[in-house]
Amino acid sequence: MTDPVFKETYSPLSSSELVAKEKSMMDENRFAHCVRVSETARTLAKLNGYDEDKAALAGFVHDYAKQIPVEEYIKVIKEEGFDPDLLNWNRAIWHGIVGSWFIKRDLGITDPEILTAVYRHTTGDVEMTTMDQIVFVADYIEPGRTFAGVEEARKTSYADLASGVGYELAHTLAFLVQKRSKIYPRTLAAYNVWAAE
Amino acid sequence: MTDPVFKETYSPLSSSELVAKEKSMMDENRFAHCVRVSETARTLAKLNGYDEDKAALAGFVHDYAKQIPVEEYIKVIKEEGFDPDLLNWNRAIWHGIVGSWFIKRDLGITDPEILTAVYRHTTGDVEMTTMDQIVFVADYIEPGRTFAGVEEARKTSYADLASGVGYELAHTLAFLVQKRSKIYPRTLAAYNVWAAE
Repeated sequence: MTDPVFKETYSPLSSSELVAKEKSMMDENRFAHCVRVSETARTLAKLNGYDEDKAALAGFVHDYAKQIPVEEYIKVIKEEGFDPDLLNWNRAIWHGIVGSWFIKRDLGITDPEILTAVYRHTTGDVEMTTMDQIVFVADYIEPGRTFAGVEEARKTSYADLASGVGYELAHTLAFLVQKRSKIYPRTLAAYNVWAAE
Repeated sequence: MTDPVFKETYSPLSSSELVAKEKSMMDENRFAHCVRVSETARTLAKLNGYDEDKAALAGFVHDYAKQIPVEEYIKVIKEEGFDPDLLNWNRAIWHGIVGSWFIKRDLGITDPEILTAVYRHTTGDVEMTTMDQIVFVADYIEPGRTFAGVEEARKTSYADLASGVGYELAHTLAFLVQKRSKIYPRTLAAYNVWAAE
């Protein structure tokens, strides 16, 4: 796999510095996932008239913080003014909400569209911009995903981005309930807006 | 079907007045459902060391307000200090939360355990007393229910009341997501407490 190149990094880092930093934060499988999400985000951006390079960058960094140690997350949540309720959750939730904070700190990215897309990519939200929707959906349908229903998710998302968001939220909720996993309330609120008919 | 008799009505009404008033508010099928919920609540109370007569009464009145016209609900929500967000929902939600208000007004029942059980019976809640759990579960497993899984719901509930609450919340959520129906946030919060493992 060729490393991606970003024309603009929205940060003081060069493209190769940004890629090297991301690589240093995760194992090879996750890095490959990030590259695939980046490419899928580009495709979705093209289909939806959004800045392709910017979407590709957001897709690339979306999981930047996924493998940061739990202890570091807890420290940051406690010391940086995050909602203390986050301490009742786990890295599946943190790597979006708190992940955007790490991206700002480590990569120097301050663009609000990129940071918000990362913030919202694991939970969804009641309000989601086009960029938010692109990253949220790209993460779900990138070519490495193999869950039952992924082909329908792809078809739905490529035909209509907002419908893809709804599909993802409904199926994620169903998956979590089937596992009897705790569901983040913001995800339910997002489901009520994007998926409920 | 013989009309039920309540030793104590927790109201100025006699048992026969209360039964007559309830009958006047609903069709025969719903009345029969209320009698079955009353009997199931009695059984669950017995199994859980709760006042059987009181549980039977709460089970009987739980759907008292289910067939009150939508317009009357809207008027009461607006004029009686209910959360205006309730206007975004429907009688499936209202007949518990606002239903308890109608029971107080029409039947003169002021006992907080009965009113709270009615309030919570359609949505569940993070905190649920034994009485709340009894009415919530009795409504779900009464002998007239025929949905797929009802036998497992009964077995689970008779073995352990709290597990019955969890079963009901998980399966109700799955059912609503499958239908792409809006989910009341309090139900999600209840699921996270009672069903998530």
